[in-house]
Amino acid sequence: MRTYGDLGLIELTKKFDGVLIKDVVVSLEELSNLSESLHHEVRSSIDLIYEHLITLNKQSLPKDLMVRVGGLSSGIIWKPLSSVGIYVPGGRKAYPSTLLMAAVPAKVAGVKKLYVAAPPRKDGSVDPAIAYLALKLDVRKVYRVGGAQIIAAMAYGTESVDKVDKIVGPGNIYVQVAKFLLQGIVSIDGIEGPTELVVVADETANPDEVCVDMEAQAEHGTTSVIALLTTYDPLLNYVEKCLEGGPNTYFLIKVDSLEHAIEVVNELAPEHLSLRVRDPYTLISRVENVGAISVGRTPSALIDYLGPNHILPTNASARFRGGLSVYDFLKAIIIADGSPTKELLRAVRVLASYEGFPIHGRSVEITYGRT
Amino acid sequence: MRTYGDLGLIELTKKFDGVLIKDVVVSLEELSNLSESLHHEVRSSIDLIYEHLITLNKQSLPKDLMVRVGGLSSGIIWKPLSSVGIYVPGGRKAYPSTLLMAAVPAKVAGVKKLYVAAPPRKDGSVDPAIAYLALKLDVRKVYRVGGAQIIAAMAYGTESVDKVDKIVGPGNIYVQVAKFLLQGIVSIDGIEGPTELVVVADETANPDEVCVDMEAQAEHGTTSVIALLTTYDPLLNYVEKCLEGGPNTYFLIKVDSLEHAIEVVNELAPEHLSLRVRDPYTLISRVENVGAISVGRTPSALIDYLGPNHILPTNASARFRGGLSVYDFLKAIIIADGSPTKELLRAVRVLASYEGFPIHGRSVEITYGRT
Repeated sequence: MRTYGDLGLIELTKKFDGVLIKDVVVSLEELSNLSESLHHEVRSSIDLIYEHLITLNKQSLPKDLMVRVGGLSSGIIWKPLSSVGIYVPGGRKAYPSTLLMAAVPAKVAGVKKLYVAAPPRKDGSVDPAIAYLALKLDVRKVYRVGGAQIIAAMAYGTESVDKVDKIVGPGNIYVQVAKFLLQGIVSIDGIEGPTELVVVADETANPDEVCVDMEAQAEHGTTSVIALLTTYDPLLNYVEKCLEGGPNTYFLIKVDSLEHAIEVVNELAPEHLSLRVRDPYTLISRVENVGAISVGRTPSALIDYLGPNHILPTNASARFRGGLSVYDFLKAIIIADGSPTKELLRAVRVLASYEGFPIHGRSVEITYGRT
Repeated sequence: MRTYGDLGLIELTKKFDGVLIKDVVVSLEELSNLSESLHHEVRSSIDLIYEHLITLNKQSLPKDLMVRVGGLSSGIIWKPLSSVGIYVPGGRKAYPSTLLMAAVPAKVAGVKKLYVAAPPRKDGSVDPAIAYLALKLDVRKVYRVGGAQIIAAMAYGTESVDKVDKIVGPGNIYVQVAKFLLQGIVSIDGIEGPTELVVVADETANPDEVCVDMEAQAEHGTTSVIALLTTYDPLLNYVEKCLEGGPNTYFLIKVDSLEHAIEVVNELAPEHLSLRVRDPYTLISRVENVGAISVGRTPSALIDYLGPNHILPTNASARFRGGLSVYDFLKAIIIADGSPTKELLRAVRVLASYEGFPIHGRSVEITYGRT
């Protein structure tokens, strides 16, 4: 990418997508025309969900913090990242919900420069819903290029692709490997793999709702990992029958207790947990490692569209990271200002001396006098 | 590491540190004896700074968030990581302040299993201040092993080294490369390189304080990057003289305006910014990319000991991450519970259908009825 630039992107798009594109960036006029072709019902649905997500994400925005302790004011100033590239996977269909889930928290965090990359359709254009949202979100540029090549381009920059500070979004294995390899050069949200859902249910769960919830997450592809852990035999039998003949493999497991089920969940660290039990909030206090929890009858598909986010940790990375949020687009800048107490200054000098940094101690002494 | 386990660690410690250790884990008895040998003044200094950092970090702890919008309750539940390994570099001296800076936010976040790794001293023991702090922090195990080998051991586990979810802390180039290569297997805080300080000063800055601040950060090693950007010629000349003959290279640069200086800072994205100007807070609003800001006369060495943290982004990674904080040890678990309005449900069905996920729509319909 660093060597071949835009021409490399056009060449690789021809090779991998079988589409000959004339330019990498979709023009404003083209976006506008595509956007106008979008069905009004899809448009108003996007608008409604956009507003919903804006409201939710604003709630989780942290405030700057400055506290005075021991004479010293210190804390955290939150600053947004300057530029973010959002990868929106393509394929048979387009996924405007993914663009919403990535862009809304970035926007609310205050990121000024957003870029969108999506693989081209057969005619070289991008999807109308993506075009509509890109205009609505005031995105700087939309790239009609998918795959590992556009990830590399956003990490290093080309003639028409701007280098960004962070790249987020799901994508196929090539996209994820590119993100993995380029981390350090560019920040990434994480490596997103196939969908995972674990349903934990007792006798209060509605069997048809359990069944369709599992089928819905299986709809993401045959590599989805879908499991039911239940204490209730009749539910197990019902679900086994209703899922029969589906294209996916499901894990249906009888457990001794709901507490045991949560232990298994914490070991698996799945992307989605559906908690269909009498007293979900008692169990939630035991949950350690999951990406998202849909509580009671709430279908996990609601999280896919109403969030707060559907870009979630997979492949056991819920051990160490959560779902995408405004925090992925903010940096905690450390700040200190003031004159600490004599006791604290003395402690600083003692520790600096212990660690072999006498000038650290001297800088304190010259500023505040001997203590 | 996966093949050779503890014996591999002992072998590599002999090879790289020239120290023959009998076992990897420092026993409780040994920690206790070492701890008792610590000078009381160092102990009370550590205690005072520990309390200071606990107070600061508690202030930045986020609350769980659950908001009801459009009939749906949703939000974020914060959960701590289960296990964290802290690398404390060794060498000529020991760095209890680094252990404090890594462990206190982890502790405040609620991490239950903390582990500490530090290279052994010549006699195979660990530093008394590290031993004292490990006991105070209720650390699970202290490993007397440094270098890339202990990073790999904490990522994969050995007979006596427990596998952790995240590894944090500075270290030499081998330690950092090991962290870089193992990310994905284990979460890391970032890649920490040599210290960086940019001082931005006008005519109100005290020249001796500027000078000693620069010398103090240069004390971290000859690879430190230290610069002064000033609008005031006499300060430039003074600092040039006072730094003469030091072991480090300093960059002393005249700028047209303080605004221009901040633009340069945002391009450099340095670890430390010292803002020694008449009106610092006006300039701070323009700062985008730095790890930490010491305001006015506040020496940057104070941040090294009183924090809120001194584990900060280097090598321009302040573009996309901040200083270590409780957020590095927490995960935002997404949660949703309830019955959204008919309008939202319809929007979900429309968008799910547009994206080719009809069963997502059906799962909503079966749960809430046709809308």
